[in-house]
Amino acid sequence: MPQSTQIAITGAAGQIGYQLAFRIASGQLLGYGQPLTLRLIEIAPAMKALEGVAMELADCAFESLHEVIISDRLEEGFRGAEYVFLVGAKPRGPGMERSDLLAENARIFSRQGAVLNEQADERAKVLVVGNPANTNALIAASNAPDMDPRNFSAMTRLDHNRACAQLAARTGHHVSSVERMIIWGNHSATQYPDLSQALVDGEPAMALVDAGWARGEFIATVQQRGASVIEARGTSSAASAASAAIDHMRDWAHGTRDGDWVSMAVPSDGSYGAPDGVYFSYPVRCADGAWEIVQGLDPDEFSRDRIRMTGEELLEERNAANELAL
Amino acid sequence: MPQSTQIAITGAAGQIGYQLAFRIASGQLLGYGQPLTLRLIEIAPAMKALEGVAMELADCAFESLHEVIISDRLEEGFRGAEYVFLVGAKPRGPGMERSDLLAENARIFSRQGAVLNEQADERAKVLVVGNPANTNALIAASNAPDMDPRNFSAMTRLDHNRACAQLAARTGHHVSSVERMIIWGNHSATQYPDLSQALVDGEPAMALVDAGWARGEFIATVQQRGASVIEARGTSSAASAASAAIDHMRDWAHGTRDGDWVSMAVPSDGSYGAPDGVYFSYPVRCADGAWEIVQGLDPDEFSRDRIRMTGEELLEERNAANELAL
Repeated sequence: MPQSTQIAITGAAGQIGYQLAFRIASGQLLGYGQPLTLRLIEIAPAMKALEGVAMELADCAFESLHEVIISDRLEEGFRGAEYVFLVGAKPRGPGMERSDLLAENARIFSRQGAVLNEQADERAKVLVVGNPANTNALIAASNAPDMDPRNFSAMTRLDHNRACAQLAARTGHHVSSVERMIIWGNHSATQYPDLSQALVDGEPAMALVDAGWARGEFIATVQQRGASVIEARGTSSAASAASAAIDHMRDWAHGTRDGDWVSMAVPSDGSYGAPDGVYFSYPVRCADGAWEIVQGLDPDEFSRDRIRMTGEELLEERNAANELAL
Repeated sequence: MPQSTQIAITGAAGQIGYQLAFRIASGQLLGYGQPLTLRLIEIAPAMKALEGVAMELADCAFESLHEVIISDRLEEGFRGAEYVFLVGAKPRGPGMERSDLLAENARIFSRQGAVLNEQADERAKVLVVGNPANTNALIAASNAPDMDPRNFSAMTRLDHNRACAQLAARTGHHVSSVERMIIWGNHSATQYPDLSQALVDGEPAMALVDAGWARGEFIATVQQRGASVIEARGTSSAASAASAAIDHMRDWAHGTRDGDWVSMAVPSDGSYGAPDGVYFSYPVRCADGAWEIVQGLDPDEFSRDRIRMTGEELLEERNAANELAL
């Protein structure tokens, strides 16, 4: 039997974790029959609930699931981890300023980066889902000096999938016929969902939709989709976030489809005028467990403006985090 | 492209439905790439939340998912359905007697049976998850005169999986090495989880565990597992119930493993002294979309007593339902 792959999840008793753990355990990340160990991490007050999650995972009798470890100690949870989902984060509470939120999360993710550096597999792939995801990824990576910053990324795949779904609905095609979508920049309200390169059944999307929709309603709908789901469900989009996290990690590990790409927030190299030194969402292609930013696209002026704006927000977040001297 | 398979789920915005819909849409019931339509049904007050579920399903960009229909009208929801998950049921409220519960659910499931009879595919497979599941299945099937009662079943697979997990943990083996587990009777506290036929890595379980555990703690643990999960999580075992529902329907449709069987509550034929005219959980083998009760086992006196007791409870439930004249 091959060795069991070590998969760590923080915030594992939360709503996203409750979806993510079962879909991974059922074989949807690594493939059916690949043995895996779930290393589920929570803060101390949630450990009782996490015990219940572990009981239910056992009760599913999953063929792939070989062990479940639960812990409120990062050292134990991250030990030997090869895939890491950083889902848990401090949510914005009533009366909390954005700067307070950034500071709270900077503390959490700097510590997580440091413990990953000590305990995780040195080639571990780390996906940050907890918000502010891009800057949390930057902080975690900065505190893991022995790990390659390219092995950290932040999730914009949910935005990417949402954008594909909106385009599919608009053009009356199945979502699987949409290719070459791009989410640029920050996983925030400044993100730029860009249709200019997208194809639908091989045809340029811009030949199928009007420019007003592409630059107006489409962008706003994708940016505000999370709020729309909360308004309908009364609670946040946990299942689709978990699904996107699996898509992100699976494509990173096993490769993107031929001719297509995905959106991932990765360390910026300045491509397309994005600022250096931030985690910026780009179109990327993955193969052999590594990603590369798609080059040679030619964003128009509208796009360059949007890329600049979301980049500026990321610089502000980075500078605020730096001032905390973490 | 093959035609899209129609899959209906009631209670689709509830906790189990929120797990079930996404796992089915991701391809785990029919197999990857098999196109499917989800027909999600809720009561009117939950339709707003169900809209949110449908939004999130679209946002997952699942390859297999071709359409999502949401409705609070059974006629629309069940139209052409080929797989039906009856998950929604009236839960027991404060101060509610068991007889009130039975009566409320008898009304719900008699109507669902009648509408399935009119609207669903005549060979539809119907799985009842909502409690009291066995008697709800009986009531639904009794109200669907044009459908084969064998196409209705109630879920004891969660109990079955829990029993396999307990035996695996006790013997230090992986759960996938456990075979020939049996849950007899009612999905209730009288269910009888029976180790007498079980194998672990091909060896008789009874040679590996002591009889006191098999007849005492093991049975109690499986019977009370749901309550233990609620105590830990603070909410019921939604993810493992959804997982078991997929296991049940998948094995029913695609067949059980060679040499093994599963537990399903099906119309009793009196085998093993169970009463006729109730839905009784038996060991069953499935092939070509049909199940048959495993014959030729020889339950000992302890087992026959337990089978009799859970059968008596099912007769009482049936008689109470009959008095409601539904």
